[in-house]
Amino acid sequence: MTRIACCQLDPAIIDLEGNDERITAAVADASAAGAEVIVLPELVTSGYMLADEAEARSVALTPDDARFAKWSAAAGDSFVVLGFCELGRDGLLYNSAAVLDGGAVAAVYRKTHLWDREKLIFTRGLELPPVMQTRYGAIAVMLCYDLEFGELTRRAVVDGADLIVAPVNWPLFPRPEGEHPGEVITAMSTARTNHVAVAVCDRAGVERGQRWTEGTAIVSADGWVVAEAGPGEVTVTADLDLSLSRNKMLTEYVHLLEDRRLDLY
Amino acid sequence: MTRIACCQLDPAIIDLEGNDERITAAVADASAAGAEVIVLPELVTSGYMLADEAEARSVALTPDDARFAKWSAAAGDSFVVLGFCELGRDGLLYNSAAVLDGGAVAAVYRKTHLWDREKLIFTRGLELPPVMQTRYGAIAVMLCYDLEFGELTRRAVVDGADLIVAPVNWPLFPRPEGEHPGEVITAMSTARTNHVAVAVCDRAGVERGQRWTEGTAIVSADGWVVAEAGPGEVTVTADLDLSLSRNKMLTEYVHLLEDRRLDLY
Repeated sequence: MTRIACCQLDPAIIDLEGNDERITAAVADASAAGAEVIVLPELVTSGYMLADEAEARSVALTPDDARFAKWSAAAGDSFVVLGFCELGRDGLLYNSAAVLDGGAVAAVYRKTHLWDREKLIFTRGLELPPVMQTRYGAIAVMLCYDLEFGELTRRAVVDGADLIVAPVNWPLFPRPEGEHPGEVITAMSTARTNHVAVAVCDRAGVERGQRWTEGTAIVSADGWVVAEAGPGEVTVTADLDLSLSRNKMLTEYVHLLEDRRLDLY
Repeated sequence: MTRIACCQLDPAIIDLEGNDERITAAVADASAAGAEVIVLPELVTSGYMLADEAEARSVALTPDDARFAKWSAAAGDSFVVLGFCELGRDGLLYNSAAVLDGGAVAAVYRKTHLWDREKLIFTRGLELPPVMQTRYGAIAVMLCYDLEFGELTRRAVVDGADLIVAPVNWPLFPRPEGEHPGEVITAMSTARTNHVAVAVCDRAGVERGQRWTEGTAIVSADGWVVAEAGPGEVTVTADLDLSLSRNKMLTEYVHLLEDRRLDLY
């Protein structure tokens, strides 16, 4: 079993130092509680509702920033994924995810599907999400709106992902009473149609007038929510056997990947 | 607005004549109630739990069978989609959908993704689901397990579908209290990630020991269930403005199709 924790934090806009403290405390607490994979929200270092490129640039981090090593150290042996506002060596800004492992940055993924006004600030990533081979299994790392593209999630599964993790910031949309947020429904469908576990870490609170869904959820490979956050700053934890994701056969004659008609699409 | 009806019937196994009567009555009733698009279950002519190829062959219909014209006549001006056990001119058996319009068979679609033991009886279709240009909008026709393949549903939307209709037979799987059936969750996710309406017609009852989900549902393009069946033989109806499906822009900067990264996948 792998213990997965999603820390639904409420980062403060352009408060790099305050967010540093939040992140450090959250990963230390999750690690102390036995979490082996820790997921934090998208743009947790900077907040999301950045006014413009100049403001984003003022809080952008390069992947060699010493904070990443500090956060990984605070997380101990845990594998950590968090969203950050990245200043690339090319001088461009990216909405990125950092993967921290063993005290260092193991990978950086630049969001390939930018949502809404992110397009006014960030440059789109040019590479597919990584599928990291870890001691817990194969973990694909993507960000928020990426999850809405079945092309991308399927590709991660074909590339061997046992678990898809995604820092997200889901603006609150209205939904019928009793329904999961739409984004969670898509995470559930992604899980069941690919037989893959999915862990999404949303953020909490209200930022510059924007309310968030607070929809953090961990979904098992059979497509059901095994843990969800609800409102506020809360850490959600679930123990999942990620090796179950490797069996794509639902019955003797049903194989979710081999049943694709690659001759037709 | 287009009135869509899904008739969740309980066909009897290998009872071609009894099922003929059920279908005739159901489409006549739905048409009389103003339905413009009528969807019936998968294999509604034959029942689903066919023992083997010989039994399937004994109840297979060719697309020029006179029953189809009769059913279309009973449906009046309505556009009808139903599943049937097809005997092809090539002598092979197909799990097919017939599209009836104006008193005739307008199209036949042969299921491209066969589920489980269907593989022992039927041959897989070689062509993608049709997207029919109708007076109500563009309607894509697929069958059951097809819906689980985002590659296929996305393709139908790229090809212009305003509505995806699917005759299905969903064997009952356990699910947590309060959750939609998993297949409905995937239909909802398909709707919201593509901004397309979806109407799935399941069957009712128990057949040769197999319980069915009775999960018939009509989902609007924003991904919410607007009508669902529950247990038993029941016709579910919803009025949808299918033209809404043509707007893929959720915000000024979000376009569900243009945001795809076709350079990456």
